[in-house]
Amino acid sequence: MGAEKNVTGAGIFEAPALGEPYLLTPGPLTTAYSVKQAMLRDWGSWDGDFRAMTADLRRRLLALTGDTKGEYDCVPMQGSGSFCVEAMLGSFVPKDGKLLVLANGAYGLRAAQTMQYLGRAYTLIDKGDYLPPRGDEVAAALDADPAITHVIAIHCETSSGILNPVLEIANAVYSRGRKLLVDSMSAFGAVALDVNDIPYEAMVSSANKCIEGVPGFGFVIAKKRELEAAKGNCHSLSLDVYAQWAAMEKTGQWRFTPPTHVVAAFIEALKMHEAEGGVPARGARYEKNRDVMVAGMRGLGFETLLAENWLSPIIVTFFCPADEKFVFNRFYDLMKEKGFIIYPGKLTVVDSFRIGCIGRMDEHVMRRVVEAARQSLAEMGVTDAAPPNAALEERAKLAA
Amino acid sequence: MGAEKNVTGAGIFEAPALGEPYLLTPGPLTTAYSVKQAMLRDWGSWDGDFRAMTADLRRRLLALTGDTKGEYDCVPMQGSGSFCVEAMLGSFVPKDGKLLVLANGAYGLRAAQTMQYLGRAYTLIDKGDYLPPRGDEVAAALDADPAITHVIAIHCETSSGILNPVLEIANAVYSRGRKLLVDSMSAFGAVALDVNDIPYEAMVSSANKCIEGVPGFGFVIAKKRELEAAKGNCHSLSLDVYAQWAAMEKTGQWRFTPPTHVVAAFIEALKMHEAEGGVPARGARYEKNRDVMVAGMRGLGFETLLAENWLSPIIVTFFCPADEKFVFNRFYDLMKEKGFIIYPGKLTVVDSFRIGCIGRMDEHVMRRVVEAARQSLAEMGVTDAAPPNAALEERAKLAA
Ligand SMILES: Cc1ncc(COP(=O)(O)O)c(C=O)c1O
Ligand SMILES: Cc1ncc(COP(=O)(O)O)c(C=O)c1O
Repeated sequence: MGAEKNVTGAGIFEAPALGEPYLLTPGPLTTAYSVKQAMLRDWGSWDGDFRAMTADLRRRLLALTGDTKGEYDCVPMQGSGSFCVEAMLGSFVPKDGKLLVLANGAYGLRAAQTMQYLGRAYTLIDKGDYLPPRGDEVAAALDADPAITHVIAIHCETSSGILNPVLEIANAVYSRGRKLLVDSMSAFGAVALDVNDIPYEAMVSSANKCIEGVPGFGFVIAKKRELEAAKGNCHSLSLDVYAQWAAMEKTGQWRFTPPTHVVAAFIEALKMHEAEGGVPARGARYEKNRDVMVAGMRGLGFETLLAENWLSPIIVTFFCPADEKFVFNRFYDLMKEKGFIIYPGKLTVVDSFRIGCIGRMDEHVMRRVVEAARQSLAEMGVTDAAPPNAALEERAKLAA
Repeated sequence: MGAEKNVTGAGIFEAPALGEPYLLTPGPLTTAYSVKQAMLRDWGSWDGDFRAMTADLRRRLLALTGDTKGEYDCVPMQGSGSFCVEAMLGSFVPKDGKLLVLANGAYGLRAAQTMQYLGRAYTLIDKGDYLPPRGDEVAAALDADPAITHVIAIHCETSSGILNPVLEIANAVYSRGRKLLVDSMSAFGAVALDVNDIPYEAMVSSANKCIEGVPGFGFVIAKKRELEAAKGNCHSLSLDVYAQWAAMEKTGQWRFTPPTHVVAAFIEALKMHEAEGGVPARGARYEKNRDVMVAGMRGLGFETLLAENWLSPIIVTFFCPADEKFVFNRFYDLMKEKGFIIYPGKLTVVDSFRIGCIGRMDEHVMRRVVEAARQSLAEMGVTDAAPPNAALEERAKLAA
């Protein structure tokens, strides 16, 4: 079944099947062959075997939170990550509550847009493309508006790759008696989010990010107290976290048809996550991926949008070179020909692209990514990958 | 990879891998091995290859509607089937509209519950566990309440297995200038729902029913005119059919991360559906499955809930035998040991169970199902599978 061994690599990481590119994208991402193989059978969703799988999945995810007091529970939810963000907001922000949205990119803005659909009160701190929302400004906003009951922070804002300072945000929120919700979609499983260090009422992530499963569902991890309080609060039957939780507790089943194959794959991915050494080891591999890749790309003249301390081990944004011979779509195609799928940028101000560090790959693969970028530049006739001055000026704001 | 050939069968249907039971359940169901094999690779959701797959999927589904005028479009949607029903109701029933829900089982009632979440006006005709809503009573309800703008019908009400008379319902609806929405979740792809015969504004189904894919998304097929009119109407960002459609038309992509592997499997399933001969051939195989299975079960003394003309080729409800030695959970386990997963009943009045006719299996498999039921009864010491009198009295209502 064509899973070629990675001859250049550390041995533990298979390359994708022949002809299949690596996905340097922040989910869907490259998954282990054994994760996909777990999908080679059909499960009855009502059957005891599958109910046991659901219980196992919830237990394994809870074990990653650091919750030793049994305060939290895990509620998997059909749909993509955005469905889970909406489920979290609709279930936990009361109809008479008010949410402070901390945005510095597409996913923060999407949370705000979700609130608009819900017709519930919110206020937005929009830091633009990538500047981090800091603890002191969150504190000031909360002091200025006593109506705010909840705050949502994006853990890793995947649109720039910035790792937002959730610890200082959490401190600001809880010191003022408010409640924190976290979108840890692209970080959970690789970046620590231990409830003993960073308290939160609820967080969401999805199957196809740092746990390295395939896409098809997400999950909410929330305080049981909040789950109970969420009864009757949600605007949507499908996205009602309380109802999903209550049904699962009672019957062991998902309320509606679960993506059985995707769940089976995810359990295999969770086992591999544990075997690798859990969150610290997964995070360390991704950091190494990032460090090797960023060093290599800088060696070619590329510049990162973010300064060192804000770079996440999830995904890195690079400025497009100033050289007019650089055309992103052509670069994309050349990289794809060489077996690597990269990601377009999401900045509004300057041209950029992104390279993900997550998925079933290691530093050996990242060296090949850099080599592919070098060749692709050469094929385009780009000799200098340095960004335009405007990009560097933009970046200088971050230091200010 | 262990896909044993079905030695007793017609040859074209593989048995599941050793140790894997057949799923006689109305989705998730038993899928072809090649459908699952299509999930053995990772796809970038932004990449052109996957965008082409999305376009192919939409085109193939539209081809099943009979729409030759280009009046309809297909919008796939993440989540389970219930998410799609909610998306359809939230997107197409205007905030100042009113929905008539035709219920005769769990899925009709779920549509009503969805309207309650949405806080939009609806009225319910609840026919109980299985009595069909008829054209004349729909007509009368519409005449009596001019505020009703839309009607939702359940094509096959999977909780009893009844095939509802959507043609006479559609005639009643359109002769009175109202609009029809159809939940064809468990019927689409096997029971004709041709727009030239049965007009509708929108319908929904999902990947893991009669097309024989694996679960993880559903789809809405709707008049383009209705799609355009749905802008701004939905209560939910994630479930906004207009927004999903508009984004797909513009970029060829799903708005949020799609279940890429499930999509790949579904395209393989659509190809197999076409190769089998499309809707008529798929329907004919399921009818044969039902006829062989029902005849065999009746031979053992079992009785169906429904009279002949209401039996769908999707799933059949049987009364539990009156004999006290019959215990459903034991019967379930014995059937499972023999390689067949059946489904509990959903009737409120009498005990019942269900056997599905859909999925990758044929009449040869159904004969083995009957044989397994015979053996299981014997192992429980049940000599007569006849239902209690109360069940037969209940059924007599249907004839009245
Ligand atoms: C931080 C964050 N939030 C939300 C989402 C949305 O998830 P999805 O695309 O699965 O809907 C993503 C997706 O990458 C994300 O990175
Ligand atoms: C007629 C009908 N409607 C809705 C649903 C709900 O679909 P899901 O379980 O995928 O949410 C089903 C599921 O079997 C169904 O048969």
